[in-house]
This record gives sequence, structure tokens and C-alpha cells, in this order.
Amino acid sequence: MNENYKNVKIVLVEPAGPINIGSVARVCANFGVKEIRLVAPKCDPNEISARKMALKGINLLDNALYFSTLIDAVQDCDRIIATCGRIDHGQIPLHSTKNALKWLVETELKEKVAIIFGREDRGLTNEELLIAQKVVSISTSPKYPSLNLSHAVAIILYELTNVDNKDTNINNKLKDHKRASQKELNNCLQQAKEFLLEIGFLYKHTASSRMSKIKSLLQRADIRSEELSLLRGILRQTKWFIDKKDN
Amino acid sequence: MNENYKNVKIVLVEPAGPINIGSVARVCANFGVKEIRLVAPKCDPNEISARKMALKGINLLDNALYFSTLIDAVQDCDRIIATCGRIDHGQIPLHSTKNALKWLVETELKEKVAIIFGREDRGLTNEELLIAQKVVSISTSPKYPSLNLSHAVAIILYELTNVDNKDTNINNKLKDHKRASQKELNNCLQQAKEFLLEIGFLYKHTASSRMSKIKSLLQRADIRSEELSLLRGILRQTKWFIDKKDN
Repeated sequence: MNENYKNVKIVLVEPAGPINIGSVARVCANFGVKEIRLVAPKCDPNEISARKMALKGINLLDNALYFSTLIDAVQDCDRIIATCGRIDHGQIPLHSTKNALKWLVETELKEKVAIIFGREDRGLTNEELLIAQKVVSISTSPKYPSLNLSHAVAIILYELTNVDNKDTNINNKLKDHKRASQKELNNCLQQAKEFLLEIGFLYKHTASSRMSKIKSLLQRADIRSEELSLLRGILRQTKWFIDKKDN
Repeated sequence: MNENYKNVKIVLVEPAGPINIGSVARVCANFGVKEIRLVAPKCDPNEISARKMALKGINLLDNALYFSTLIDAVQDCDRIIATCGRIDHGQIPLHSTKNALKWLVETELKEKVAIIFGREDRGLTNEELLIAQKVVSISTSPKYPSLNLSHAVAIILYELTNVDNKDTNINNKLKDHKRASQKELNNCLQQAKEFLLEIGFLYKHTASSRMSKIKSLLQRADIRSEELSLLRGILRQTKWFIDKKDN
């Protein structure tokens, strides 16, 4: 996985809500982002409500860099994306979020990269949008497109980690389970078939059609070795219970 | 684009932060979701801080449905996903978020669908996770995986709007078969549990962990009504065979 995204700088322009700033710090920590830059905040980013929302993102808040203009905030950055919630963004073309984020992090050079988020109430001006090479917009309901600032950051960071990341974590977790072999499965089904014939659930002429239904169910689940053992255990114990009655 | 997702019910289990509940209402409105269900909230969802965060999501907050247990909250739902932030989720398999969300909305039947989110501090219990057919986890930094509740909802809803409609053929094939309801499945598992306790395969202290393994196997297969009937038939016949020996 491309981990360049962790070097991304999250830039907030004139944020006005301490709760939002704290929430942004938390979600940056959630996604391993290491730097927040604040352009002329309209509130105190160290207010108690910001600190409460930041939780383990508190270091990001404490170490946030302050700038008085957006140009200053991104002047050392080589690749810059701006986010835009408005629909009337004039002549500025929108890029697909996925493609823009891919472009942002798929560099092997030691480039600094930034994503800019605008004011809670009115986003970024057209002039500010033009500071970035690419402008993206998160698609939402046209009836109420304006996302909360920290939600916008959360969604963009989530998308950023998913650029080229094909659910590797989950696949690793799934790999821990050993899938049962066809031979194991067939052996178990054979035992089950004999038992079901014995108790009169199956008749010779219905056996194979019913057993194939059970097989297809277990195959659909990608049954694991440990689960087959469980089923075999049930079969063994049931037989034992029945034999006990005979004696 | 498939717009089924707008009918999804967002279920919050014991939410404790009014700011979070308000934020969830707002982001639901952002993505066109129409219903929030609250299970035994640990705070007043109509507190001023919740209402302030909800903004245009205020109607969703005002019309939220209240339930005392999670089972009650989802009993009318046919497809259910639970979200899980923990890494130690025991034997419960994780699904890829994209695939699970695709499965959730790609139905042409008038099914009710729900996504469950757990408590801010400790998510959902394993027992609660098992109420859903599929469990997903948002991949975050392993150093600080715990997302804010409303950020988790934002990310899942964003992903949900992005699931495309490819692979509908697969669903059309599945449509011919009626999937078993959660109620049917639970009833069958309850009968099986009683039987397995009786024959001594289960002990009281191992029963729930072993039964949850069986449940998770059957859920992974998206078990159908007709297959549940087959399993119930086997159970019934085995009991009959045993009773016959007693006489």
C-alpha cells in the first residue's frame, strides 16, 4: 500500500467551530495523518470543546501550524487539492475524487502534498480554489450538499487510504482461517449421508439430491476446516447418544 | 445509480453523546437517508447540542424511532450490516465494506435494510454483531482505530452512495431463492441448541460460543428458507429416532 498519504498536510481555512477543529484532529490521527495547518482560525483551536473532541488527536492539535493566508500555508507544497461543496464553482473544473487523490499520493519524489478544506459556512473562494492544481467535490444529496467540516475530512482521508488499497487488512484477517479441502468436505458428507440413511431421514432414491443441497450450502459458505470438525463432532456425539440407548 | 440506499435505516446502539447524535442526523440528511433508529440512548437526543449539530438533519432527529433492544430495532429488516471497530472480534468473520454494502442495497425486492453502529466507547458486543448477516470494519490506522461515531456513519454512507450496480446478474440468480429471515434462523438455532445440550455435545458454558460458530457459518452462506427447512427436518427426524428407542 502506498503510505505517502500519511505525509499529507490537512489545511483548514478560517475554521470557526472548535468542535469541528477537534474532530478533524481526531480523524487525522485515525488515519495516521501527521500535520494540520490552520489558516486564520475564527475561534480558539485550544478551547476545551476542541480538546475534548480531539481525544488521541490532541498532539496534532497542539502541534498545528498557524498561517495568516492560504498562500503561506501551502507555499512549500508541490501537489495541492482543494475541496469544494458548492455547485456554483464558476469555471473551475472538478476532478473525480478518486483520480485526484491517486495523483496526490502516487509520487515517488519527496514531494509535500496538501488537501485544503474551506470555511464551515461558505467553503473556499474561487481565488482560493485556484491555488490548488485540482479541485474535488464529495457527491452528496443535492437537497443538502453541505457536509460538516470534519465529515468532509473523514471521507477524504478514508478515500485516500483506499486509493490502491484493496482491503488488504481484511484479506489478511480472512487468511487466518484454513478453508476445508474438497476431500475433507466429501468425507464428512459421506459420514453424514450414512447416518441420515440410518435414521430414515434419507431414502436411497432421495439421498443424492438432498445431500447435494447440503453440499452446496456448505460450499457457498467456503466452509473452514475447524467448522467441518465441529459438524463431525455433532455427528459423532449423536451416534454415541443413540448407541447408548441401545445398550 | 442504485438509490435503494436511501431507504437504509441507520441504527445507533446506546449512543452517549448528543453532539454525535446530532452530527449523525446531519450526515444522514447529507446523503438522503430517511430514518434513524435509536436503541436505548444514554443521553437526551434532543438536547440543545444535538439539535445544533443536526442543522438540516433536524427532522431526522425529531422523527427518530426509539427501541429498548437492538433485536426490536431491526426485527423488520431483511438485510442487516453491523460495523465493528475492534480488532478482537473473536470468530466473527469480517466482510469487505464495499462488497457488504453492495449486497445490502442490490435487491429489487422491497426489503428493509439496516446498518448498525455501536457505542462510542466500546462498539457492539459479539452477540450484537451476530444479529447482522455481515460485519464490516473501516480500515484505519492500527495505532488509533477508534473513529468518532458520526465519522463512521459519514464514511459508510459515502461508500454506500458509491457502490455501483455491476454484478447484478449474481443477484438476479440469488433472487430465485428466498433467503431465510433472521427470525427463522434464530428459531432453528434455538431448537438445535436444545438438542445439542440434550445429547451432551454442548455444555451450558460452551453453548453460546459454539452456537455462534454455527450461526456465522450459516450466515456466510446466506442460508435460504428451503435449506433451513432441510436442517429442521434432520433435527426432527433425529429426535424422533431417539424417542423411538426410548419406547
